Amino acid sequence: MGGRVAPVRDRQAEAVAIARRHGTEVVVACSPAAVTWLTGMAPRIGTGLAPWAAPPVAVVGVDLPATLLAAPEQLPAEPPADVELVRILGYHLGSLDPMAALVAALEPLVSGRRVAGELDALPARIAAPLAAVDIGAALAWARRLKAVDELALIRAAVRLCDVGQAELRAQARPGRTELEIWASVRAQMEHAAGHPLVVLADVVSAPSAQRFEGPAGPEVLRPSTAVLADLAPRLDGYWGDSCATVAIGTASRELRACHGRVRDRLHAAVERVRPGLQAGALDQLLRRGLDFPHHAGHGLGTTYHDAPRIVPEGRDRLEAGMVLALEPADYGAEVGVRLEWVVHVTADGCEILSTHDLGL
Amino acid sequence: MGGRVAPVRDRQAEAVAIARRHGTEVVVACSPAAVTWLTGMAPRIGTGLAPWAAPPVAVVGVDLPATLLAAPEQLPAEPPADVELVRILGYHLGSLDPMAALVAALEPLVSGRRVAGELDALPARIAAPLAAVDIGAALAWARRLKAVDELALIRAAVRLCDVGQAELRAQARPGRTELEIWASVRAQMEHAAGHPLVVLADVVSAPSAQRFEGPAGPEVLRPSTAVLADLAPRLDGYWGDSCATVAIGTASRELRACHGRVRDRLHAAVERVRPGLQAGALDQLLRRGLDFPHHAGHGLGTTYHDAPRIVPEGRDRLEAGMVLALEPADYGAEVGVRLEWVVHVTADGCEILSTHDLGL
Repeated sequence: MGGRVAPVRDRQAEAVAIARRHGTEVVVACSPAAVTWLTGMAPRIGTGLAPWAAPPVAVVGVDLPATLLAAPEQLPAEPPADVELVRILGYHLGSLDPMAALVAALEPLVSGRRVAGELDALPARIAAPLAAVDIGAALAWARRLKAVDELALIRAAVRLCDVGQAELRAQARPGRTELEIWASVRAQMEHAAGHPLVVLADVVSAPSAQRFEGPAGPEVLRPSTAVLADLAPRLDGYWGDSCATVAIGTASRELRACHGRVRDRLHAAVERVRPGLQAGALDQLLRRGLDFPHHAGHGLGTTYHDAPRIVPEGRDRLEAGMVLALEPADYGAEVGVRLEWVVHVTADGCEILSTHDLGL
Repeated sequence: MGGRVAPVRDRQAEAVAIARRHGTEVVVACSPAAVTWLTGMAPRIGTGLAPWAAPPVAVVGVDLPATLLAAPEQLPAEPPADVELVRILGYHLGSLDPMAALVAALEPLVSGRRVAGELDALPARIAAPLAAVDIGAALAWARRLKAVDELALIRAAVRLCDVGQAELRAQARPGRTELEIWASVRAQMEHAAGHPLVVLADVVSAPSAQRFEGPAGPEVLRPSTAVLADLAPRLDGYWGDSCATVAIGTASRELRACHGRVRDRLHAAVERVRPGLQAGALDQLLRRGLDFPHHAGHGLGTTYHDAPRIVPEGRDRLEAGMVLALEPADYGAEVGVRLEWVVHVTADGCEILSTHDLGL
């Protein structure tokens, strides 16, 4: 880092400042989103917490080294650099009470200090003895701006989206099932990553107002319809996001018209993204002339929906450093289209991070 | 059910009895394992809790209908039958505070009552106003015995293991990567299920004492080695489990000898499984002459490691109705083998639920 403070250190300092503003001196965080943000370590989430494990916990505080408490088997081969490690008892053959081990390891870090935490995430067994003040919303808001290290990780996750969307396009043929396409798409993304991935995904054929989200199923792709794939992989704790809608065989006139409307809205809105634009105004740009029941976009980072929310009443203003996934859509009675790109808000506009084909 | 009480009603009554024994009147449960056990509904776990969602919560109590609190989008198409539903505010375009909606919906169910819960799992935001007594360990222990409906679900999950293990055997050829094999294995399991699955899996080529667990990677399978696949899919909230070790090309004499030792131990131990046998004695049967650092087995149900643990010092005695995954192994310096079958403890022995090939 050549004398520069690592961005993760800045985030730790920011969390301490939030704690101070809430009249406390130490933050105990255990949501995967906050642990990654504060330490660079990505807790595993794909199969839930192991029955023999307590969640990894990040602790930052006034006059306290930033600390990660985790069992050895929860740590990656290369432990995070900008945080002290406290290894707690993990899997072993004797009697297991992982949460007791965690509470005991926390004790010297929090003893005599006023504690802040994310009360939506902290298990009662940890939180009860701490009488913690809730700073979950403040931490989530702080995460809206992405530092250079985070941007690199989001770029890498979006690269995986590009790989998956290219495979969708290659595989979208009549007669295949959604599950077959999904298996190919995920396999290509995992090949690119070099390991299995957690992917939040919608894979929906013949999208329409009745069915525009949900997992892949046994449905067979029919000619003259479309398949929609919304792919959000998590890589090293940061999420990518993407959506494309691909015609199966020859696209109907109705589908082409619907696709054109959505694509034009996305392009027009991307042109207008810049600091100062209000989320509600961006929502309006993305929604005009289209019909969809969900948000028009959202932030992206250590959660798949960070702040800001791009919704009709959204009052947040865009800031340089935000990363937004923009996803206008139109779900007609017969056909539906959703398209999604990820953009990074810059000082005077935005950079488009996605490179996948938006074509029908 | 023809007048019989549904087994899920029995479990709800059992949880109420546990609450009473702890001096309380109502149980508030939010771990996916307990919610499934008490309601039959399987919370989604593969991508973590959505940023706009509170966890589904099950409430059972004295003079209280068993109740499931969940957002509409968290519920399956066919809602669970033996529980009252309270639909809480889920995803919407307005301001989001899902945990506040949950706490408000809980209030009339718990007001004026002494509350018990799983304090390792209950978020502080829910637990703090309840001053809940911890019954997590008691609930986990109650889950050790499987009712007829649970056994059917575990059988179905084990069927998926069989499908995956058959595909492993079909795909295990020199030159393929672990990730390629994993993609095929999972695709076949998902095809059989009809939807994407959460699968806890080890896929390790050339298993040895150095490397006998972990996700699939880019490693290429080499001739005269082996690939080990431990596949644990979750189906409708219940886990299956399985392991096989398959030779790549011609097996070395050392590998064949190692495989023979492990297989013989598994067969010998299965012969001895019956009510009354102590977990430590079963561990000894499975471990004799072999060298592996982990448990020799574990229960299986709404967690992938239910009680009892089959470990050297295990004092629990087997009971009819337990479901056990038995997984002896031997990780020599050069080669390693692990084999795993799931068995259901019956009145006078056990039934083997797994049908996958244990051959090398």
